[in-house]
Amino acid sequence: MTKIKVAIVGYGNVGKYALEAIDAAPDMELVGVVEQSESFQANKPIELTNIEVASTIDELEKPDVAILCVPTRVTQDVARQALELGINTVDGYDMHDSIWDLKKDLDIVAKDKQAVSIISAGWDPGTDSIMRVLMEAMAPKGITYTNFGPGMSMGHTVAVKSIDGVKDALSVTMPVGAGVHRRMVYIELEEGYDFKEVEKSIKTDSYFINDETIVTQVDDVELYVDRGHGVEMERKGVSGATQNQLFSYSMKINNPAVTSQILICAARATMKQEPGAYTMIEVPVIDLIPGDKETLIRKLV
Amino acid sequence: MTKIKVAIVGYGNVGKYALEAIDAAPDMELVGVVEQSESFQANKPIELTNIEVASTIDELEKPDVAILCVPTRVTQDVARQALELGINTVDGYDMHDSIWDLKKDLDIVAKDKQAVSIISAGWDPGTDSIMRVLMEAMAPKGITYTNFGPGMSMGHTVAVKSIDGVKDALSVTMPVGAGVHRRMVYIELEEGYDFKEVEKSIKTDSYFINDETIVTQVDDVELYVDRGHGVEMERKGVSGATQNQLFSYSMKINNPAVTSQILICAARATMKQEPGAYTMIEVPVIDLIPGDKETLIRKLV
Repeated sequence: MTKIKVAIVGYGNVGKYALEAIDAAPDMELVGVVEQSESFQANKPIELTNIEVASTIDELEKPDVAILCVPTRVTQDVARQALELGINTVDGYDMHDSIWDLKKDLDIVAKDKQAVSIISAGWDPGTDSIMRVLMEAMAPKGITYTNFGPGMSMGHTVAVKSIDGVKDALSVTMPVGAGVHRRMVYIELEEGYDFKEVEKSIKTDSYFINDETIVTQVDDVELYVDRGHGVEMERKGVSGATQNQLFSYSMKINNPAVTSQILICAARATMKQEPGAYTMIEVPVIDLIPGDKETLIRKLV
Repeated sequence: MTKIKVAIVGYGNVGKYALEAIDAAPDMELVGVVEQSESFQANKPIELTNIEVASTIDELEKPDVAILCVPTRVTQDVARQALELGINTVDGYDMHDSIWDLKKDLDIVAKDKQAVSIISAGWDPGTDSIMRVLMEAMAPKGITYTNFGPGMSMGHTVAVKSIDGVKDALSVTMPVGAGVHRRMVYIELEEGYDFKEVEKSIKTDSYFINDETIVTQVDDVELYVDRGHGVEMERKGVSGATQNQLFSYSMKINNPAVTSQILICAARATMKQEPGAYTMIEVPVIDLIPGDKETLIRKLV
């Protein structure tokens, strides 16, 4: 079997776990890791000892798929660069409001270069999105509540860390019921910054402005970090004319581990789509897992 | 908007609820109901007063999709007949062992006639199959347990009713943990038949032979019938190298209502696939629900 050649682009939490997920995938091989920072390349983590590390993707053997483990805010640019080279991409872009725009933009480049991009391929957006569609299919009238956490939000944590005056940060998502959440933000302050000013910058950031947000200053953020997370999704709705149809879905997981695992599954699925950009709800789920169609249908349908 | 023209083929429990689901669907119109039995046509149920009822599908205005609400054991023949006429089909075929064979067979006819068939499009097989694939994608190593019920199994009940000597029947599925089930079968006996003989026929039927089955004779089966059902699906597995990832999915529903609702969603999806036969795990979930792509992605991803 020819293995799917993949590259990890960005080596933070998700990138690190992506390495393990690729290692566990029977149908994939890693051509290398892309990480821009010079200090990273000078001090490669031990697990990358025998792995090619480059500062740009074109320095590596050309992969079939680039697994983008970079912050949401640079995803669009990084994805475009890979697609321009004819390399498929998957990403965990997590700003729900602009997913459609990202899709439209990458769709043009992907089609032009005969490549495939699967965007927002984490758990929410991602597998949770598939669940929301399924629940709405089974009961078209009704309300779905997606309750996150309690758990560390990687997207929100990265967003806080990028704010001026924040030395280190952790953003925990706390469900308060019916799909409403509170953001519990723990920060270490850079010297010379005023807590009240930084707090205000956080609360008015687009990641936080719509939710109740409590910012707390702590001495050592690292002592608070646990990467467990979860979701409880609930729908009560109507199938046809029949009321009170009840659905629930829950997940309690190590967040970067499941995120990177889904990215790896989406990378596999890029090999089976026509050129273009897709969200997870547009991809047949069978394409996410390895194996031939007959075996998978006999086992799982 | 041009509506999707559908016909209901078979008017038992599922067919009756399919009528309500079609009525509630904004993008569908019913061209009629197909029901072979002559007594049915002489005594149409009141809700069909203004609806065309025919004994074969070619007597109706040609629908885009035939929604097959017939017993599993006649599904293959009925589906072939519709596909031969170039009509898409959806069915709730529920014998897991032979789904692949059904797909292979219908795929040939469908491709030949430029039609689409989505098979086994109920909740299990069907939406549960999608869940099993998703859970395996998120945690490739581990065990998924699908626990059904307690609830009335329509497929098993129909199977018992077709056994010689059974006047009326009900088969209730009882979960006993870790995906193991007991079948609780309640029957009224035809006069002149021996209970022990009938019990043996039931226990050796292919629907029952693999499960513990308890058959009880009752005076009036109808008093025991409640069409509520449910499922609890659980997976504990490994994402990449990370253990103890926990997933669960549960559903508590009116069984024929959700089954027919999913069939209607699959009927919609037939309009968006290339000719051929598909299981639910091969169909992008976005195709199951009405609406344009941009609206759905903005709302649900």
